[in-house]
Amino acid sequence: MKKYLITGFSGFVSKHLLEYLSFSGEPCEIIGISRSQSEPIHYDHLQIRTYQIDLKNTQLVREIIGSVKPDYIIHLASESSVAYSWQNPLESFQNNTNIFLNILESVRVSHLKCRILSVGSSEEYGIVDPSTLPLTEKHPFNPISPYAVARVSQEMLSKIYVNGFGLDIVITRSFNHIGPGQNANFVVSSFVKQIVQRKANNISDPMEVGNVNIVRDFLDVRDVVKAYMCLLKNGVSGEVYNVCTGVGYSLEDIVTRILKITNANISYFVKSELIRPSDNPIIVGSNLKLKNLGDWKPLISIDESLTDIVKYWEQNLS
Amino acid sequence: MKKYLITGFSGFVSKHLLEYLSFSGEPCEIIGISRSQSEPIHYDHLQIRTYQIDLKNTQLVREIIGSVKPDYIIHLASESSVAYSWQNPLESFQNNTNIFLNILESVRVSHLKCRILSVGSSEEYGIVDPSTLPLTEKHPFNPISPYAVARVSQEMLSKIYVNGFGLDIVITRSFNHIGPGQNANFVVSSFVKQIVQRKANNISDPMEVGNVNIVRDFLDVRDVVKAYMCLLKNGVSGEVYNVCTGVGYSLEDIVTRILKITNANISYFVKSELIRPSDNPIIVGSNLKLKNLGDWKPLISIDESLTDIVKYWEQNLS
Repeated sequence: MKKYLITGFSGFVSKHLLEYLSFSGEPCEIIGISRSQSEPIHYDHLQIRTYQIDLKNTQLVREIIGSVKPDYIIHLASESSVAYSWQNPLESFQNNTNIFLNILESVRVSHLKCRILSVGSSEEYGIVDPSTLPLTEKHPFNPISPYAVARVSQEMLSKIYVNGFGLDIVITRSFNHIGPGQNANFVVSSFVKQIVQRKANNISDPMEVGNVNIVRDFLDVRDVVKAYMCLLKNGVSGEVYNVCTGVGYSLEDIVTRILKITNANISYFVKSELIRPSDNPIIVGSNLKLKNLGDWKPLISIDESLTDIVKYWEQNLS
Repeated sequence: MKKYLITGFSGFVSKHLLEYLSFSGEPCEIIGISRSQSEPIHYDHLQIRTYQIDLKNTQLVREIIGSVKPDYIIHLASESSVAYSWQNPLESFQNNTNIFLNILESVRVSHLKCRILSVGSSEEYGIVDPSTLPLTEKHPFNPISPYAVARVSQEMLSKIYVNGFGLDIVITRSFNHIGPGQNANFVVSSFVKQIVQRKANNISDPMEVGNVNIVRDFLDVRDVVKAYMCLLKNGVSGEVYNVCTGVGYSLEDIVTRILKITNANISYFVKSELIRPSDNPIIVGSNLKLKNLGDWKPLISIDESLTDIVKYWEQNLS
């Protein structure tokens, strides 16, 4: 029975990953690591053990990984907010780069045969010339936030551990995720929540938004977890893969779609305080390298995804 | 009176920096930070205070920098051995990137007006195509050791703190240093020490060497410290400057020169164990950007430098 060690176990992506693993029907053992206390959960076919630890604790990470001896490590833990990284650059760096380095070191010193998924971010590309879209993995780094620097550092470390120490690491640059269950700190989830809330309570105030002209490549979290499983199976160690749809939508387009799905009549206005000082105007990735591995392509359309997010908030507002 | 905070205070470069500052005659206050206990030292015109602390200690670094309020921080502290970084990648990363981030954070949260010198390394360039030599600062990164990754991370963080937080940081990529007082862990110092030792004791055994075909850009440490002072005075914040001679010498050439200077007749042989698995065959930098600031050019020839290193080991062998 294969053992999966999943960090960031209490997070959004992890929940969908567990659903996917459970649905696949193959029995497997899950070791979940999270900073926060995990509630007891049950999924068919999965034996789940959880550890509540801080991945910054080098010694503890080493002990757990050394004793668990996982076949796969899916490293979802991350302080993934760009905004947070500007407020707390030190914590952001430590909770991205240093926690990942602790995991790599644990695998190295324990001499484990273990495949690691290093999840990175499209933020590593920074502000790009629109003529270079969709971005391939050959596009150079241009990190413009503390978070992006931390992710580039993580990726560089991955390559060193593959080439210098023979570790087995598949690397992603994951673009924006959306899907049911995502925290309303993230823009699409926030839009849906506000619209559902206003409709349910007959609130007529216009909704406050930031810059709705920015274009992002939004991939449904269920397609994200399938991509990750495909990479664990078919990815080449040391290689980097964009995880994205290849299609960009402006936030304005997203809001229009949500209004149509909810059949709501809500206006919005741009609040200058919500506009970030140096945001990438447009970012869209090429997923050709990942698709060429076979076994994966994005299956959930933007409207399907938004419809499920609407349902989620309709059920979870109270 | 200007205050200089110098990290890596007990190191090779720091000693030469103090000599330079003392010789310049302008009274200044020096705050030396070192992991090891500093012996009491005296230099004319310098008021010296020392702190024995580990720069990984975020809180302590913050307290000291916040209370000292230096005008300049010359960050010489580094776990600068590539070989060590392969043995201890975690410690190498923490003692390069994390200690530097602690310093940046201390300056940011204390709202200090303070110019920082971020010392990086030619190792950031990795293995390069000889047709691209001498390397300018526009040459892309290609870090191939844990040490090099740590230095690239440091440089990326510097740029974020300049562009995002308005800190005043001048960045170097410093090439190989040589000079009197350097530890014999470094290749040129090691060659000189061995040759002086063999000559003094009439040892006829051939000397063991590694790959003597590799070519490096060796800059005398006294020219290094002058470059650093020039950068503190004239460097542009956020800009990167190679610190190098622009001329490469093979290690074989270096050995031949040392033998000539010492008038020694010692043979050597290549010991395969001393050959590193993936070393850069040749690396030479362009120092044009630094020279264009005015006030600096390398003044100490390779033979002058080697002669002084010979004198150093003749005096310090016993």
